[in-house]
Amino acid sequence: MQFNEFYSGRTGLTVGINKVLFSEESPYQKVEILETDTWGNMMTIDGMVMLSEKDEFVYHEMLAHVPMFAHPKPRRVLIIGGGDGGTAREVLRHPMVEHVDMVEIDETVVRAAKQFMPDVGDFNNPKLHVHFEDGIAFVERVSEPYDVIIIDGSDPVGPAVDLFSENFYRSCYKALSSQGVLSSQTESPWVESYHPAIRKLFRSLDTIFEVSRMYLAFIPLYPSGMWSLAFASKGIHPHDSEVMDRVVKGTTSMDASLQYYNPEVHQGSFALPGFVREILR
Amino acid sequence: MQFNEFYSGRTGLTVGINKVLFSEESPYQKVEILETDTWGNMMTIDGMVMLSEKDEFVYHEMLAHVPMFAHPKPRRVLIIGGGDGGTAREVLRHPMVEHVDMVEIDETVVRAAKQFMPDVGDFNNPKLHVHFEDGIAFVERVSEPYDVIIIDGSDPVGPAVDLFSENFYRSCYKALSSQGVLSSQTESPWVESYHPAIRKLFRSLDTIFEVSRMYLAFIPLYPSGMWSLAFASKGIHPHDSEVMDRVVKGTTSMDASLQYYNPEVHQGSFALPGFVREILR
Repeated sequence: MQFNEFYSGRTGLTVGINKVLFSEESPYQKVEILETDTWGNMMTIDGMVMLSEKDEFVYHEMLAHVPMFAHPKPRRVLIIGGGDGGTAREVLRHPMVEHVDMVEIDETVVRAAKQFMPDVGDFNNPKLHVHFEDGIAFVERVSEPYDVIIIDGSDPVGPAVDLFSENFYRSCYKALSSQGVLSSQTESPWVESYHPAIRKLFRSLDTIFEVSRMYLAFIPLYPSGMWSLAFASKGIHPHDSEVMDRVVKGTTSMDASLQYYNPEVHQGSFALPGFVREILR
Repeated sequence: MQFNEFYSGRTGLTVGINKVLFSEESPYQKVEILETDTWGNMMTIDGMVMLSEKDEFVYHEMLAHVPMFAHPKPRRVLIIGGGDGGTAREVLRHPMVEHVDMVEIDETVVRAAKQFMPDVGDFNNPKLHVHFEDGIAFVERVSEPYDVIIIDGSDPVGPAVDLFSENFYRSCYKALSSQGVLSSQTESPWVESYHPAIRKLFRSLDTIFEVSRMYLAFIPLYPSGMWSLAFASKGIHPHDSEVMDRVVKGTTSMDASLQYYNPEVHQGSFALPGFVREILR
């Protein structure tokens, strides 16, 4: 059996599947866990790859560590989405973290991940608090601010569409502390149908935040293998010298767990090819 | 019709094909040109994607401009392989270039590219000299040295297998002038079956050259979308300040033609994720 995900006409990814381990139509979306031939178990939502056990480290390390090291003292962290638990796992490696709220709209995602991808999450960590509710409503009523907010949603269709809206990012800005930092996944620059959504998102960030930048990661099971992410903050630049000092020190002490992220990658990932810059123009 | 190229079990790329425009079994390999639904015409050799008209700029800009800007005065350039003409086209954008020898073993590749990808090559340029012969033998008998040598071969199977050998790189070293620079394509870090070949190649470069480094590019139609390349030189570091000055000046003057390469990308492409560094250890 082959799983296919097309992103440009009939071009895309094909993955060899041994069997379907889990398939459930939740109130929000179709969640499946497929046993692949060489990538371990793989989660899809509405037919789009979310993660495989083998390549998930790239996405989760890059989404979590870039903002976490940018903040000088990240104690309170909010994750919107991220139901597989991988982003929270990377956040919880930072020793300063005291409290992580993870707001996942769909309990099906967490249940499937806990059962079929037990090594991805760190759900028993007492610092982690999982809430099954709408992340957008959650952000709007935050009273105690967060140091870092991470948007770990799926593609801008279905329940995640509002995670690309300006209003949502205004709420995030308000929910952040004075040195607050945010990251978000922002699709592949090669998927032309998402260019308007990507452009709109970065224009919103540019309007709302003092600093906003795109960065990139190589993710083999995502469309085209090239993935973009957003960094935004109330003033911290993503690789000024103080941030880079923290990255160098911090990665040295957590080195054994890191398979992708390191100081050179932190900095190099902000280098954008010409055609990617054009999308943002 | 779908074209498939697997790189890990039954995982890989799938591309929608309208029709087969060219298919010929040469003395060396099977060369095909397929009309795709969204990537223009695409060339495959023995079932492996070489380039599409839409994404070829990434590979050719990164393989050519990184070594070309590293050299202070690249007048004579040798390209081994590169029969589609894209690497030579990018080399010829550098105004200092006086003479380019392109040594392609298989005239079928050039013939197919000229007919079905007319915008990729710059074959009428009087500075370009095409030789249909074995690149390895050609390098061994070079008398007038080259400033830059670019290895633009296919995967280390079939006629390109010796392009990954230590002897070949020793010949390249001898064929380079005193400030000589070399680049080569070195496969995807995600294709585990090629790890021994990649490791051996970089060990050879490390033994033979004063400076050798890996760099990376996002190529959507190559396996995994993550591609590695090699930089080697007789002493020039790939992003010391003199090189970066040349890159900044040079890209400003050729800006309109560049869709991927720029100064930040030149530098950032040398940042290697942890799992890639592990392959080289």
